[in-house]
Amino acid sequence: MATHVLHPGPSQYSYWFGGVDPLLRVAAGDIVELSTEDCFGGRVTTPDDLPSKVVPFGELNPVTGPIEVIGAEAGDVLAVHFISILPARSHAVSSTFPHFGALTSTRETAMLHDALEERVWFYDIDLDAFTATFRANRSEYTVELPLDPMHGTVGVAPANGEVRLVVTPSTHGGNMDTPEIRAGATLYLPVNVPGGMLSIGDGHARQGEGELCGTGLESAMDTVIAIDLIKDVSLSWPRIENDEFIISTGSVRPLEDAYRISQRDLVGWTSDLTGMDVLDAYQLVSQMGLAPAANVCDPNYTMVAKLPKWTLKDAQAFGGAHSRLRAAADAYRLDGPPRIRATSVARQG
Amino acid sequence: MATHVLHPGPSQYSYWFGGVDPLLRVAAGDIVELSTEDCFGGRVTTPDDLPSKVVPFGELNPVTGPIEVIGAEAGDVLAVHFISILPARSHAVSSTFPHFGALTSTRETAMLHDALEERVWFYDIDLDAFTATFRANRSEYTVELPLDPMHGTVGVAPANGEVRLVVTPSTHGGNMDTPEIRAGATLYLPVNVPGGMLSIGDGHARQGEGELCGTGLESAMDTVIAIDLIKDVSLSWPRIENDEFIISTGSVRPLEDAYRISQRDLVGWTSDLTGMDVLDAYQLVSQMGLAPAANVCDPNYTMVAKLPKWTLKDAQAFGGAHSRLRAAADAYRLDGPPRIRATSVARQG
Amino acid sequence: MATHVLHPGPSQYSYWFGGVDPLLRVAAGDIVELSTEDCFGGRVTTPDDLPSKVVPFGELNPVTGPIEVIGAEAGDVLAVHFISILPARSHAVSSTFPHFGALTSTRETAMLHDALEERVWFYDIDLDAFTATFRANRSEYTVELPLDPMHGTVGVAPANGEVRLVVTPSTHGGNMDTPEIRAGATLYLPVNVPGGMLSIGDGHARQGEGELCGTGLESAMDTVIAIDLIKDVSLSWPRIENDEFIISTGSVRPLEDAYRISQRDLVGWTSDLTGMDVLDAYQLVSQMGLAPAANVCDPNYTMVAKLPKWTLKDAQAFGGAHSRLRAAADAYRLDGPPRIRATSVARQG
Amino acid sequence: MATHVLHPGPSQYSYWFGGVDPLLRVAAGDIVELSTEDCFGGRVTTPDDLPSKVVPFGELNPVTGPIEVIGAEAGDVLAVHFISILPARSHAVSSTFPHFGALTSTRETAMLHDALEERVWFYDIDLDAFTATFRANRSEYTVELPLDPMHGTVGVAPANGEVRLVVTPSTHGGNMDTPEIRAGATLYLPVNVPGGMLSIGDGHARQGEGELCGTGLESAMDTVIAIDLIKDVSLSWPRIENDEFIISTGSVRPLEDAYRISQRDLVGWTSDLTGMDVLDAYQLVSQMGLAPAANVCDPNYTMVAKLPKWTLKDAQAFGGAHSRLRAAADAYRLDGPPRIRATSVARQG
Repeated sequence: MATHVLHPGPSQYSYWFGGVDPLLRVAAGDIVELSTEDCFGGRVTTPDDLPSKVVPFGELNPVTGPIEVIGAEAGDVLAVHFISILPARSHAVSSTFPHFGALTSTRETAMLHDALEERVWFYDIDLDAFTATFRANRSEYTVELPLDPMHGTVGVAPANGEVRLVVTPSTHGGNMDTPEIRAGATLYLPVNVPGGMLSIGDGHARQGEGELCGTGLESAMDTVIAIDLIKDVSLSWPRIENDEFIISTGSVRPLEDAYRISQRDLVGWTSDLTGMDVLDAYQLVSQMGLAPAANVCDPNYTMVAKLPKWTLKDAQAFGGAHSRLRAAADAYRLDGPPRIRATSVARQG
Repeated sequence: MATHVLHPGPSQYSYWFGGVDPLLRVAAGDIVELSTEDCFGGRVTTPDDLPSKVVPFGELNPVTGPIEVIGAEAGDVLAVHFISILPARSHAVSSTFPHFGALTSTRETAMLHDALEERVWFYDIDLDAFTATFRANRSEYTVELPLDPMHGTVGVAPANGEVRLVVTPSTHGGNMDTPEIRAGATLYLPVNVPGGMLSIGDGHARQGEGELCGTGLESAMDTVIAIDLIKDVSLSWPRIENDEFIISTGSVRPLEDAYRISQRDLVGWTSDLTGMDVLDAYQLVSQMGLAPAANVCDPNYTMVAKLPKWTLKDAQAFGGAHSRLRAAADAYRLDGPPRIRATSVARQG
Repeated sequence: MATHVLHPGPSQYSYWFGGVDPLLRVAAGDIVELSTEDCFGGRVTTPDDLPSKVVPFGELNPVTGPIEVIGAEAGDVLAVHFISILPARSHAVSSTFPHFGALTSTRETAMLHDALEERVWFYDIDLDAFTATFRANRSEYTVELPLDPMHGTVGVAPANGEVRLVVTPSTHGGNMDTPEIRAGATLYLPVNVPGGMLSIGDGHARQGEGELCGTGLESAMDTVIAIDLIKDVSLSWPRIENDEFIISTGSVRPLEDAYRISQRDLVGWTSDLTGMDVLDAYQLVSQMGLAPAANVCDPNYTMVAKLPKWTLKDAQAFGGAHSRLRAAADAYRLDGPPRIRATSVARQG
Repeated sequence: MATHVLHPGPSQYSYWFGGVDPLLRVAAGDIVELSTEDCFGGRVTTPDDLPSKVVPFGELNPVTGPIEVIGAEAGDVLAVHFISILPARSHAVSSTFPHFGALTSTRETAMLHDALEERVWFYDIDLDAFTATFRANRSEYTVELPLDPMHGTVGVAPANGEVRLVVTPSTHGGNMDTPEIRAGATLYLPVNVPGGMLSIGDGHARQGEGELCGTGLESAMDTVIAIDLIKDVSLSWPRIENDEFIISTGSVRPLEDAYRISQRDLVGWTSDLTGMDVLDAYQLVSQMGLAPAANVCDPNYTMVAKLPKWTLKDAQAFGGAHSRLRAAADAYRLDGPPRIRATSVARQG
């Protein structure tokens, strides 16, 4: 069980899932300390730096990776546990972006409107207080927001030889933009190619559900993950597990189809874990399931479907992978730097 | 400030919003103790009573009302505070229903599939433990679920002389099926006709987000509401407020448009309450907003958009109506029957 | 077989389907010569009359009717054959309208954009040439367009006691805005209430598929219809028949669901008419069906699904109602005014 | 101006747009005689060959290519004129396919239904009569359908380094499944990579609008194209031109967004060609545009938007490329084999 360090140089970031040579090789059970750049490639350094001016389109949303997991093969599942996700700079950035976001005409929802005004919001990050300061652009309004650091983009190489830009989430994960991928969570991804080829980016110091304006509190991150490999388990869409919930995802348009995929997957998962028939599981999920939006702004929309684990009694998803990774995380944290030791406490505030 | 009692007889339930004579006249500030029938009209009394067989289509989802509010006129807002919502029977019922629900072909999402099997789940209700017992149909699996009583259908007469069946939510409220309409919440509805004409029904002992299979834990309810009237305030879509959140709603298809409506409304509301310009409010809601599905099964889908009230500082929505109604509820509860005194505690479990 | 004349006075137009007393009673087999006002109630009389300024919202899209058909009962089908539809004025009007249309944010697709500029286009109508003159507002561009007169809004009282504003198409017909409702076509509508209660309006001298900007060449019309009644035939959605096609409709959101409804109905209709099983009919419609958009701007979108009648061989829809009505139309036209005698020729240009 | 021949061997077909080495290099102005395999790779040879059994998923929808066009660079437009498309076998094949098609639950519209029955329809092709024989599976019903040969899948390498499976249409073209890509049409595609990298496949002897069941009359094709290159012209989505129409396309979900993209593009194109301002062009397209569905079954849906060229007067799209290619096609046909000389006549029947 090795611990790796992965700090890409400026030219080492990637912009695709699939078709990219690995930056790092790890074994199942290893831990990786890595850093990610923000979605603007760190180029927005003042409120006057409009993203559409300072960031070339093809260099939006750099990801760190891919990480090759030795022994991973198509038909396996990669389990990625997030031990710690910490903003790496003293500020985070959000913005409107021309023809991007949920409340504007876009390339996909094409209309005759001009773009909304492009504006930047700068947030000061206070890691001790675990807050970010919202400051209105056009008035004196200001308020402290709690941090809830997460990664918007985590995925593997797609199936069938596809190479996808980082911006579009799908069955391989990618830019799902769900706050559920926070410290303490385990993300399960289907392995489609040898090594899986995991990449991570798009850290948000926090975001609302749906990522309404198209950006969260975009932040470079120092992140620690533990990786596990589950052999010979079929998985259609990414799943997430934390101490309290099992969580299915679906990424497609229209939004009701993303809802359907995520809930259909959760019903099947519940049936598998409890031995109930599918309609009984449908009934239980209908009464106990949660259904928050993840993103309603990317080329595919993402919904997540959550079920409290206590309704499943003793059932262990993926052979108890989350519990094992949680234990590994605790062991790592015992020796970790002070900040990381404190993360899991902070985020529960 | 009078307290009214409204227990409709079997022939007094209504099935429409609009076009119905009032059952009761009340003044702003009054309290109404009322009872509602379940969405099956109480006709499903054993697990063998298939809803599509025992309930005529036109008699699904009876509502109690309308209640005429003296002095309410088009252009006003009706504030309905839920003091208490308690299951009135010792059981609740859920079911699949032919070609209804989110994971089946329907009248709207028309396909060549036969209907899914129609099955009924009976839940025992324990008001002391505040739980309902889920029992699988086809296995021995059973689990206790916490009650979270709510009304799926609350609305007023629509604008422009329309008469709508209870099943379709829209700007007048109606069958929004959001768990946010629970005890402790205040629902704001636009007044479209003299008296407003409020009706309430479709109690759920609990439901998941999205009402996946098309039904919650359908339950007759004993409900107490306090009514207020806010004069000369424009309102496009129903809003909700509780002690922690302001909540906008949108009911339309596809689901992303329901999301857009609810979030657009929340952005405007936030701007109004804080004095920020619209893009600043867009930014704050983007980072702090929640976006759970309400229903993804009815003829219009409903999303809700939630913002924590602390981000708004001292701002008071609708002139502080929620606080005033909360106080009235507390006063009522002091003298109320033991069960109602306990409700607000129970639901916070 | 009587011929009726129905020219409503200014105060006699209606704005709803359902809940309105009949203007006229007719028998099956009768002919009605009627006039309809344009969707702006005739109030846009110069290019400077902006519709949102000169037309109160509740007075948009007046319809002529309802017409009660003696003996029509729920469970029957009303067949409405259009003998002639002729623009009644020497001009037609089109416009953008604030937050209405397919390429703008709307009440349903809510965004942060301001409305597009509201502008009016006046078209000169030349009934002899059967053309309308398009003149650009901001340049000298002008081109003659062929007339193809049609009614955007034709429907009956809805089922289950609903009263719907004219603007929303659904199972009762209404504002479907398909150019298929032109002279020579027979529209089949489900009867939901005694007398059926047929209303007609929203004439377009022509329109494109989808009614992109939200309005066609809005025109008052002189229209002649023949009415028939088919007893005891179930019908879920409006259907249309002309000499060449059987045509199903679906009106709902999102647009793929309107497509699904119309195609699903056409598959079932094809199966019924040919005796083929449903999958064989699915196959034939898959290869021979047409699928143009009708409207993508109203509160429900409408798609139509068309199948050439020769693929059905000798099958007669609705017991040959279209052929009988066509013959009645020919008989009427023999004696009709010159203009009407010429209509069917003109429209085939 | 050379004429090339491209008949791929069984191992030479490709399954992606992007990331594939060219099979052929041609110059602008060249003609290519090529053959394409059907979407089942020719493996369905009897009605008992169920596609899901005999075709590995990754080998569905082989395409012929890519063809590298010398001198093509990102920012150019590739014009592909279809001189002739002729079925290469005496039969074509259609089928239902598990969880694929518009009237079934799918991977994207996930539900709890089992797949519809998988069945195969064999069509005899008669090139002299230019017909295909539909034979019902479960009855004696049979009818001759006119051929209207087309290619469902034509595209280039995507922008930004993406590699896409052939099944998903997008800005690079691909599996748009519109009958508009028939002999006599010119397809305009944006060049994203050096050489453009054109691939063609998925011939249909005919299909309905929407490709309802998910397959047309799937047929290997002998096809002749003429290629031209238009330098330094920006193009966002594929466009088509024939002798009568300019045609825009949009491929995305939900279907109204595909409609919006295609109509928005057609409005802009019309404005560019006529010099009218955008709202004037919006008005003209609103009245004269057609909007048939192309596919409502693939991972992205496709709508096309058509405007009669006579409304544009003397305007020449893409500098008259279609006329030039039409002339080149006529010259080629003068010397072509008899079948090809007759194609354009046959298809106009």
